[in-house]
Amino acid sequence: MNERFLRQMDFIREVDKLKHIVRRSYLTDGSRRENDAEHTWHIALMASVLEEHISGERPDLLRVLRMLLIHDLVEIDAGDTFAYDVQGIVGKFDREKEAAERIFAILPEDQGKEMMELWLEFEEGTTTEAKFAISMDRLQPLLHNYATGGKAWLEHGVTSSQVLARIDSISVSVPEVAEWARELILDAVRLGYLLP
Amino acid sequence: MNERFLRQMDFIREVDKLKHIVRRSYLTDGSRRENDAEHTWHIALMASVLEEHISGERPDLLRVLRMLLIHDLVEIDAGDTFAYDVQGIVGKFDREKEAAERIFAILPEDQGKEMMELWLEFEEGTTTEAKFAISMDRLQPLLHNYATGGKAWLEHGVTSSQVLARIDSISVSVPEVAEWARELILDAVRLGYLLP
Repeated sequence: MNERFLRQMDFIREVDKLKHIVRRSYLTDGSRRENDAEHTWHIALMASVLEEHISGERPDLLRVLRMLLIHDLVEIDAGDTFAYDVQGIVGKFDREKEAAERIFAILPEDQGKEMMELWLEFEEGTTTEAKFAISMDRLQPLLHNYATGGKAWLEHGVTSSQVLARIDSISVSVPEVAEWARELILDAVRLGYLLP
Repeated sequence: MNERFLRQMDFIREVDKLKHIVRRSYLTDGSRRENDAEHTWHIALMASVLEEHISGERPDLLRVLRMLLIHDLVEIDAGDTFAYDVQGIVGKFDREKEAAERIFAILPEDQGKEMMELWLEFEEGTTTEAKFAISMDRLQPLLHNYATGGKAWLEHGVTSSQVLARIDSISVSVPEVAEWARELILDAVRLGYLLP
């Protein structure tokens, strides 16, 4: 096979490392923390199921899925930054951009460029597709935290206003889902899963 | 939110169990066996990268990705059947179909029906999309086995003719990739990763 294919295979081997990047969220049974590869699969399937709840313009679902499939690859180099880690967020974009440049450069140039654009589109969060993709990425840890009695929230002293702020950003894309999520957060506070 | 949404959320919580279904293949660094959720993410990304190698008719990549995202959900109930487990294959389809019926019925009826059709399409393997999806599913464990010095192959006494037979089925969809994979298998035999 030609060099193009061999670069694609190098990329495919490289991305296997995503399975080692452990997140703060636990599986819904609380048995262990989940990794980025599992999380990515889960939110891609969520996007496929929840698409109908998007307000306004229909997204290009293929673009959403391609975006989601690669959105966390930068964490192979930059590591997972906990959503509520104020210090970790400093310099996050620069660290992740450097990671994106290294990882996507393994691919043939045109494909690497396309993936870099998809990753930047997700980070910028301005298109219909990016907004919906981000919504899935924010909704899933909420479900996992609720299912585990707030295990990761309580471990890290997260408060309801912090979680509500993250959910606010999904209101534009999936307003009814955001409304439901807000109720879930209030319920989590009542149940002692989350600090008020 | 309405009952439709609540059923979608029940499904999203249920499928989290896929992260517990451990396969025979190891991660490429050999540190542990991988699970179905990680594997599914990996082959969905592979499909997104390797699409250009399809021979003949262009596939609907969105359909391929949706098919891949759900193709192993049946293993939540039926468990992972090792590709070379002759006894395990007896009754496999019936066990998995029963699982598909239970799991997809959690969704709203139209979505459950659509997923069942996608799953059956993958199992039947006759459409362009299914053939390509199956090719990714067969190629990935080969890469993992090669990368780990044949760890899962040697543990289970798998022979090169068994692996070659599985790779034969990808020739229709991605013939050049299949040819490359055959060379990899012969190389694995030379290196002692795989029984002749």
